[in-house]
Amino acid sequence: MAMRMSSLFLRTLRENPADAEVPSHQLLVRAGYIRRVSPGIYTWLPLGLKVLRRVEQIVREEMDEIGSQELLFPALLPREPYEATGRWSEYGANLFRLKDRREGDYLLGPTHEEMFTLLVKDMFSSYKDLPLALYQIQTKYRDEARPRAGILRGREFVMKDSYSFDIDEAGLDKSYDLHRSAYVKIFDRLGFHYVIVQAMAGAMGGSKSEEFLATAENGEDTYVRCDNCGYAANVEAVQVTAPPAQPYDALPASHVEDTPDTPTIETLVAHLNSAFPKADREWTAADTLKNVVVMLVHPDGTREPLAIGVPGDREVDEKRLGAQVEPATVTAFEEKDFAAYPTLAKGYIGPGALGEKGTSGLRYLLDPRVVEGTAWVTGADQPGRHVLDLVAGRDFSADGTIEAAEVRPGDACPSCGSPLLSARGIEMGHIFQLGTKYAEALDLKVLDEFGKLQTVIMGSYGIGVSRAVAAIAEGNHDEFGLVWPRHISPADVHIVAAGKDDSILTYGEELTRALEAGGLEVLFDDRRQASPGVKFKDAELIGIPTIVVVGKGLADGTIEIKDRRSGERRTVPVADAIAEITREVTSA
Amino acid sequence: MAMRMSSLFLRTLRENPADAEVPSHQLLVRAGYIRRVSPGIYTWLPLGLKVLRRVEQIVREEMDEIGSQELLFPALLPREPYEATGRWSEYGANLFRLKDRREGDYLLGPTHEEMFTLLVKDMFSSYKDLPLALYQIQTKYRDEARPRAGILRGREFVMKDSYSFDIDEAGLDKSYDLHRSAYVKIFDRLGFHYVIVQAMAGAMGGSKSEEFLATAENGEDTYVRCDNCGYAANVEAVQVTAPPAQPYDALPASHVEDTPDTPTIETLVAHLNSAFPKADREWTAADTLKNVVVMLVHPDGTREPLAIGVPGDREVDEKRLGAQVEPATVTAFEEKDFAAYPTLAKGYIGPGALGEKGTSGLRYLLDPRVVEGTAWVTGADQPGRHVLDLVAGRDFSADGTIEAAEVRPGDACPSCGSPLLSARGIEMGHIFQLGTKYAEALDLKVLDEFGKLQTVIMGSYGIGVSRAVAAIAEGNHDEFGLVWPRHISPADVHIVAAGKDDSILTYGEELTRALEAGGLEVLFDDRRQASPGVKFKDAELIGIPTIVVVGKGLADGTIEIKDRRSGERRTVPVADAIAEITREVTSA
Repeated sequence: MAMRMSSLFLRTLRENPADAEVPSHQLLVRAGYIRRVSPGIYTWLPLGLKVLRRVEQIVREEMDEIGSQELLFPALLPREPYEATGRWSEYGANLFRLKDRREGDYLLGPTHEEMFTLLVKDMFSSYKDLPLALYQIQTKYRDEARPRAGILRGREFVMKDSYSFDIDEAGLDKSYDLHRSAYVKIFDRLGFHYVIVQAMAGAMGGSKSEEFLATAENGEDTYVRCDNCGYAANVEAVQVTAPPAQPYDALPASHVEDTPDTPTIETLVAHLNSAFPKADREWTAADTLKNVVVMLVHPDGTREPLAIGVPGDREVDEKRLGAQVEPATVTAFEEKDFAAYPTLAKGYIGPGALGEKGTSGLRYLLDPRVVEGTAWVTGADQPGRHVLDLVAGRDFSADGTIEAAEVRPGDACPSCGSPLLSARGIEMGHIFQLGTKYAEALDLKVLDEFGKLQTVIMGSYGIGVSRAVAAIAEGNHDEFGLVWPRHISPADVHIVAAGKDDSILTYGEELTRALEAGGLEVLFDDRRQASPGVKFKDAELIGIPTIVVVGKGLADGTIEIKDRRSGERRTVPVADAIAEITREVTSA
Repeated sequence: MAMRMSSLFLRTLRENPADAEVPSHQLLVRAGYIRRVSPGIYTWLPLGLKVLRRVEQIVREEMDEIGSQELLFPALLPREPYEATGRWSEYGANLFRLKDRREGDYLLGPTHEEMFTLLVKDMFSSYKDLPLALYQIQTKYRDEARPRAGILRGREFVMKDSYSFDIDEAGLDKSYDLHRSAYVKIFDRLGFHYVIVQAMAGAMGGSKSEEFLATAENGEDTYVRCDNCGYAANVEAVQVTAPPAQPYDALPASHVEDTPDTPTIETLVAHLNSAFPKADREWTAADTLKNVVVMLVHPDGTREPLAIGVPGDREVDEKRLGAQVEPATVTAFEEKDFAAYPTLAKGYIGPGALGEKGTSGLRYLLDPRVVEGTAWVTGADQPGRHVLDLVAGRDFSADGTIEAAEVRPGDACPSCGSPLLSARGIEMGHIFQLGTKYAEALDLKVLDEFGKLQTVIMGSYGIGVSRAVAAIAEGNHDEFGLVWPRHISPADVHIVAAGKDDSILTYGEELTRALEAGGLEVLFDDRRQASPGVKFKDAELIGIPTIVVVGKGLADGTIEIKDRRSGERRTVPVADAIAEITREVTSA
């Protein structure tokens, strides 16, 4: 498509849209790539659609390269398969549900595990048909509670989802590795700075699981990494290394003390240091055991209280807790809930009230650091009283452990013990071994070489395609606008006619046509009414990597080539223009 | 993507699926192009997706060629714009509606007039920005009452919709003609036999309107054409030529007669011939005036009875009536409705009961043939009685005319009077002049050259892209399977390894690679377990236009090239294979 600014469906904006907080969102709207229709629902304008298609094509090529076969499922899906796997309810409010004219239940697909499983079951029946890898690039729907940052977290979005089907675990490992290597190529080609982190499989079930995160200050995902051994994991997946159990024979007996007005860790520590000073050191929050109660809501609507014990110097991390209790969601433990459990003394809850043998019977899970033999100050289950020298394994126990405490920079690497670093990223891809969860739920079996039915073993692999456009913009911009990586840019060259002389416009058009004939995509700013200043600003904002200025120099037989990223400019004789521009575009 | 039958995600079926009635549906499922998920909702399997993409690309190229710019709207849309134009309710049960987690009303877009109108309003403000043409190739949703024939009438489907924006009627005419010419090119390239017929604008509003119909025995749309003058129209759009009014001074006065047991036209005509024989000829149904009552249901749910008078030899055509009363729908006039209008004598309803001055007050519309001075036998509004010699304009009148009587082959062409022919087709494209309907409802105005606000004038242009795949299949098959037009086929060549000798498979693979290296798309049937017979059957079913058989002849240094459409075969030396196949593929 010939692109001339005089007719292109584009209006750049000088101001950031009111609802746009992150640079990618601001710039993609201002530069005319996307336009909001509704929260988390966007239109792709002509330039944006070109970028989206380029990303799609890179993903497609690499999936084809590993022998994955493309097909296309509908987005409007019947309820039954999602009922069979439990996800109809597990997805909760994130699922768009609707009824058709015959009152049949339908959903807008958030991801297609069920459909792929059923299709393979419908078509294939023998181990000879495996391994098999299928994918689609398709519009998906999730009714996010907080749609965010334009197309970074949308409610209608484009995703590439793949699935592998194998007869055994060894096959799955091979399929997984194949997809992992394809993802590395894709994210390299997309020009991302990214990390591959260990992840939890979450609502999907399954075992091995990794995420590809684009490193980004504004990323929603926090991950940790160890520069010593190379370990990297998103915070949900970090497994705290429990210290070894300690002998407790020599420890003093526990004793309950009055600690008036100490409902918080801060007030408690202050009180301990004034009323029970230690000889050798100050009391710190790390000496206390904080017991937090929350209410879980299961997909079927039932509510279950849960108590979590963490060292007092750490908060319970909402995301880590959420990942642990999925598909249940976490809500607050309210006054009325306290009323229902009168043995819970708000602000002074202790192990005496918690767990199977506790007075409240609340399920009680402990941070892995609270190992046998460690001594704690914690609530005595009476207002204004705490118990000191309470030893885990001697004086109290819980119903299990949970990875819900916050992970902090400096925490020990689970792999080598070195201090972890913390950073933020945008989840761009997720690969995981589903195992037999879906195949079992939907009865996908094939005959093995001995004629016996075997449940097929699946892997699932996703890339956020529309999100990638935002993430690339997030990682490629400056104060003036976007700076597209060459292979993603909506055009190869942006030619600016800087001046209203007919000769400038005529030569600009000639140059455009010559470059187009040579196979380059050109955006030519041929507007008569816009000033050179406006045109330069627009070119910087739009972010095509090579800008060619046809202006005053033309009288002397020169044009200017500017590299959008570095800002470097050079003057080139008109006679060399085509060769120089082509070299610039194809070399980088 | 390299395509080998041994690994291709494909299973051909020998039996037609139970729910498939038309050949395109049967063959597309049997040959592994599509698979049903739910009524009117289909998955595109790898071969099907390739065909779909080829059709899309042809449409895209021709739209780009006329300067239309591609963008992409979401499918999930907010209610408000559709409320503003009235279509939220007018679409009735055809619209998929849903709520998001905040109870906001959304719909799945059936067509995007509102969204394009609002986007242009948001971005452009001057006549200098016009003319403008925009399009998208996008997934659309309509909750059809009777999803039919696979992807021919689906509930989720791919459509290309374009819109033009002009400052005046002359501009609209130009945009309309531009799209019309692009459509001609598209349907030519898609290999259709098609007709362009006059159409009604229907629920869309607007004026000039034409449909592109693929001629097909199984088509849902009936159209008429005149081979004398070239007139063609779908039945909804046919305008009956009213005969001139006739003098009635010499006609006898009307008289009511007993006509016991004559509630139908047939019994009435029989009674007339026996009780009131004519001297010169028999009474026929054409002498009678049949009054049909129906109940209209308006989008807001209100019900309105309507009486239609047509010559007794014609039925009321549901589709023609439906098109006239849109957006209302037509339902039966039930016993309880008769009870509410006691002056309507079922089977003997006459003009005396109908119209503004009639005893029932029912709105009464007449066929255009019932002109002033024509005499009729019709109901006398009493059981068992009819009135004879009742003259239109003298003895009765109505509230207006309506084009609701069936159109029959042999009817006079509205343009030249020659007899019309009738045929069936599949609606593939629809172009129409919207005028200002949407621009007015959504306040799309631009400043004209005098600085005055002018309402923008729009055109709307649609092509059923997924439907085109079915329609092409419908027009290109034989008793053995599909026969794709070359530019639509999922591959250029289908190579069949007819035999299990390693030499056959090895050469087949070599030939495949050589052709692929030459830029051809090849489907190679390299299955070891399938017999040559099965492979030949599959090749015929799948319908790639050129089939190459590598078999016994290989020992003598020959292969066979078969044209799928004509069935012609020729033997070619291995040395010439690549050249001959390439010539075959690129020549046709």
